[in-house]
Amino acid sequence: MSEVGRRRRIVVVGGVAGGMSCAARARRLDEEAEIVVLERGEHVSFANCGLPYHVGGEIPDESQLLVQTPASLRAALALDVRPGHEVTGIDVASRSVTVASADGVEQLTYDALVLSPGARAVRPDTAGIDSPRVRTLRTVADAVALKERVDRGAGRAVVLGAGFIGLEAAEALAHRGLQVSVVELADHVLPPLESELAHLVERELVDLGVELRTGVAAAAIEPGADHDVVVLADGSRIEAELIVLSVGVRPDTQAFEAAGIACERGAIVVDDHGRTSADGVWAVGDATARTDPTTGLRRPVPLAGPANRAGRLVADDICRPGSARPIPQPLGTAIVRVGELTAAMTGTNAATLRAAGIPFVTLHLHPNQHAGYFPGATQVHLVVHISEGDGLLLGAQAVGLDGVDKRIDVLSTAIRSGMAVGDLIDLDLAYAPPYGQAKDAVNLAGMVGSNVLDGTLRLWYADQLDDVASSSLVLDARSEAEYATGHVPGSLNIPHTELRGRLDEVRAAADGRPVRVLCASGVRSAIAHRVLTQAGFDSASLSGGMLTLRGLLGRRVDGVLARPVPVA
Amino acid sequence: MSEVGRRRRIVVVGGVAGGMSCAARARRLDEEAEIVVLERGEHVSFANCGLPYHVGGEIPDESQLLVQTPASLRAALALDVRPGHEVTGIDVASRSVTVASADGVEQLTYDALVLSPGARAVRPDTAGIDSPRVRTLRTVADAVALKERVDRGAGRAVVLGAGFIGLEAAEALAHRGLQVSVVELADHVLPPLESELAHLVERELVDLGVELRTGVAAAAIEPGADHDVVVLADGSRIEAELIVLSVGVRPDTQAFEAAGIACERGAIVVDDHGRTSADGVWAVGDATARTDPTTGLRRPVPLAGPANRAGRLVADDICRPGSARPIPQPLGTAIVRVGELTAAMTGTNAATLRAAGIPFVTLHLHPNQHAGYFPGATQVHLVVHISEGDGLLLGAQAVGLDGVDKRIDVLSTAIRSGMAVGDLIDLDLAYAPPYGQAKDAVNLAGMVGSNVLDGTLRLWYADQLDDVASSSLVLDARSEAEYATGHVPGSLNIPHTELRGRLDEVRAAADGRPVRVLCASGVRSAIAHRVLTQAGFDSASLSGGMLTLRGLLGRRVDGVLARPVPVA
Repeated sequence: MSEVGRRRRIVVVGGVAGGMSCAARARRLDEEAEIVVLERGEHVSFANCGLPYHVGGEIPDESQLLVQTPASLRAALALDVRPGHEVTGIDVASRSVTVASADGVEQLTYDALVLSPGARAVRPDTAGIDSPRVRTLRTVADAVALKERVDRGAGRAVVLGAGFIGLEAAEALAHRGLQVSVVELADHVLPPLESELAHLVERELVDLGVELRTGVAAAAIEPGADHDVVVLADGSRIEAELIVLSVGVRPDTQAFEAAGIACERGAIVVDDHGRTSADGVWAVGDATARTDPTTGLRRPVPLAGPANRAGRLVADDICRPGSARPIPQPLGTAIVRVGELTAAMTGTNAATLRAAGIPFVTLHLHPNQHAGYFPGATQVHLVVHISEGDGLLLGAQAVGLDGVDKRIDVLSTAIRSGMAVGDLIDLDLAYAPPYGQAKDAVNLAGMVGSNVLDGTLRLWYADQLDDVASSSLVLDARSEAEYATGHVPGSLNIPHTELRGRLDEVRAAADGRPVRVLCASGVRSAIAHRVLTQAGFDSASLSGGMLTLRGLLGRRVDGVLARPVPVA
Repeated sequence: MSEVGRRRRIVVVGGVAGGMSCAARARRLDEEAEIVVLERGEHVSFANCGLPYHVGGEIPDESQLLVQTPASLRAALALDVRPGHEVTGIDVASRSVTVASADGVEQLTYDALVLSPGARAVRPDTAGIDSPRVRTLRTVADAVALKERVDRGAGRAVVLGAGFIGLEAAEALAHRGLQVSVVELADHVLPPLESELAHLVERELVDLGVELRTGVAAAAIEPGADHDVVVLADGSRIEAELIVLSVGVRPDTQAFEAAGIACERGAIVVDDHGRTSADGVWAVGDATARTDPTTGLRRPVPLAGPANRAGRLVADDICRPGSARPIPQPLGTAIVRVGELTAAMTGTNAATLRAAGIPFVTLHLHPNQHAGYFPGATQVHLVVHISEGDGLLLGAQAVGLDGVDKRIDVLSTAIRSGMAVGDLIDLDLAYAPPYGQAKDAVNLAGMVGSNVLDGTLRLWYADQLDDVASSSLVLDARSEAEYATGHVPGSLNIPHTELRGRLDEVRAAADGRPVRVLCASGVRSAIAHRVLTQAGFDSASLSGGMLTLRGLLGRRVDGVLARPVPVA
């Protein structure tokens, strides 16, 4: 500590995730600096992502959510951490912030200021939204309060919003024995997930006893003595003793925008090193606008991983100017456990690609997570988007019982490194029967993708079924027994093993029309497609087969397929 | 099928893994070709990697090991598959092979020939090795025979060789209730695994009831009426009713080398497209010499993944000359389950790097596989080798109860894409409490590695303990309670939370010597290192901390540490 002159003071606004990562890294780089962390809330460095599991009882003790305390941070890292301190203004000219706390309002000067205020839960202006029975799930106090109401015997709950936190909350409440309804405006749960995968999550939720109300808004909340009533836009009414509000978050930046920090739709604009429009002011985390590496569009990415990473790299830029690694553009990798299932995604989804006008090809696969002959084999339902032409990996999603996180992490790594789909063939992934297949799911995606790119394979898609059924011969290459479990009306069933000897039948039935093949998952129909195309047919194979078709149809399946039987 | 002229004939020698992948792909690309698969053994396309699990009973039914049969391959892919057919010679000039079968010897001409003969178990010239109680574990017949002996009540087994298959066999036999001894010449099991990780596997084997005899050779096998006796080089004797021989494999190429196909130490030399020295002859799989991407040295890589991949790409080169994707250089990614543990590796290990004279830095980490506050958190014991200077990823290994396969697959993907260690910081890996941490183990490896590269962190290593203890002050930054569980004799204990206030004590104790810090895993000692180095000390932090030190010491730990207590 220098006797002469003031120590450099780094002020961090927000003591969770990005802010605390920044403060900790700054200390490791600079023993001399004064590092002050101002946190509006009660706790710093708490486990946001663990809150639903406290409500559900998997993390029984509230104290487990408090990863660090001001005292532990002072001891280990000599940080001056001040909970209950809210920054209400910045004077960028004099480099000072206005801080409000129980002790009053004070000014605090800074040499470097890092804004990590996070996001605030979106509160729609639905009538009755301020009922005391409505609670968000953003803080330890929220989790504790929800858990207490459950402990006191609440029996019915409504979760507004079926995003990640909404589903985690719904599962937690169902796990505690509540009757839970989830209301979601989008037409399926987990709106960023492709609809052909989302149905699997919906089925799991229904199996957990959760009632789903998708494609409908909550119109009003009517308070009552014993319970509130959530009134939906379709007029239906759901009674609830507690209501979890999780319809999204938005950057919590009003005070900073007012101080002249440039924002874009409320999110703080930052450069590659987290620098804002004001000299000496950086920003990280949910409150910042981050560039999507695929579309080039800026949007907030409210995820812990990118926030922590940015916090660390901002500390580097403050303490070692000119030599810090740039903050990478986040891919938005996200994952959620729902019952026994895992759903995960990385990169860009189909809706975003379409909106951005980026030409892309989608691959659907359902490979086993490990060798089929080893006990416990289950399918990974995988969707991969690649760019038309060069085959660059743009995004991937997966749902399954096991091995989903691994495939998404590998694909995220491949996207980050700029791989094209064919490069996935080359990945040397760990294989032994309990862990994978000699051709892993990710390798198979590479093979299918490069077959599509070079014309070896031509795909048709489940959402084209109506057009295809009216203009083409649908050839079902499954076994007779499989065909009997449900099939496209008017389709011709020739098992792929008999196709070479029955091409005349196909020719007669097609009668000049194109042939569109399908099987259970797309493997046998791809073999059949190769037979057909080399025999001169205009042929294509259904991407992902009946599994994807059923996924897309969801509960409508009974109305579309002939001789349908309920999905096991 | 053309009426005029002979169809192109592709002959594949060997109907497992690479050979069958090649035949299947060739058919998908070419409906017209005649494709003949000659397999010396009884079965094609069987589950080699599943054999130990049949012995252990996890795959109860032998038929589950037979993934395909000649009939199923004929039906689906019109392949002419001939088991019991051994190729004993090639005439590359006339493009024909000599085939021996129960029906006699015939000549078969080819347009394209693909050699996928695989590897043969190494049989050392140990006296008594031909005892009928000695059996390898390479074929379905081997697995069935071993299982039968166990079913008939064999009580004692010796496994010669503690490689992947040896350990899987040992576990399977122990699981069936046999008393199992494993004999391994190297000084630890799984010789390619770093010794500081191998001890964890050894502990697990001991917990499974397996006796380990490492660092010693089997000198002789003495046959007896009721059992054989395995005599070790140290004179000790182990009785066994069955003996599994798994001391390695070597390419099975004698007939081909005799025919003039260029080989290198028995392995067929191939180019990037699997082409051998003879026109019209390709080779794939365990019998081929593959180039190590790090060392540039050629060696066989007897793994299913690379074999399958090469088979597919060779079919491309045959059917679409000039446009096939090159066969990638295998990273040697491998994985094994041992009891509750998983051990896995990718890329190059320390011994190979040292032998090749490649300067490298090793990182040791022990992060949790998922959030520490979520139930079931366990450590991934991770070793990463990076090149000195540019930090390119060279190899990685991990051992743990959960999440090991995921981290190795991510690291394998990162190595394949040519990432440097700092790039691991940028990976957007899926985070929710049941799956990972906001800073995943792989991200942390990136942070530690870039800290080492830019001088923020300086490491010392467990294998330098003797030198360090005699020349430096060893500073133990753990708590007093942890220190009491075992510590380096003469070390000074100052918990890292007290260090800033007790630097005078360090200065006095160091008395001008360097300070070498350690803690449990290397996290706290890195913080302490930053405090010390900024206070002017010559400091370094023990890579991987006491966990790695104990790992390296293995059973010698009691003789080295003061006040040691047994590891839980």
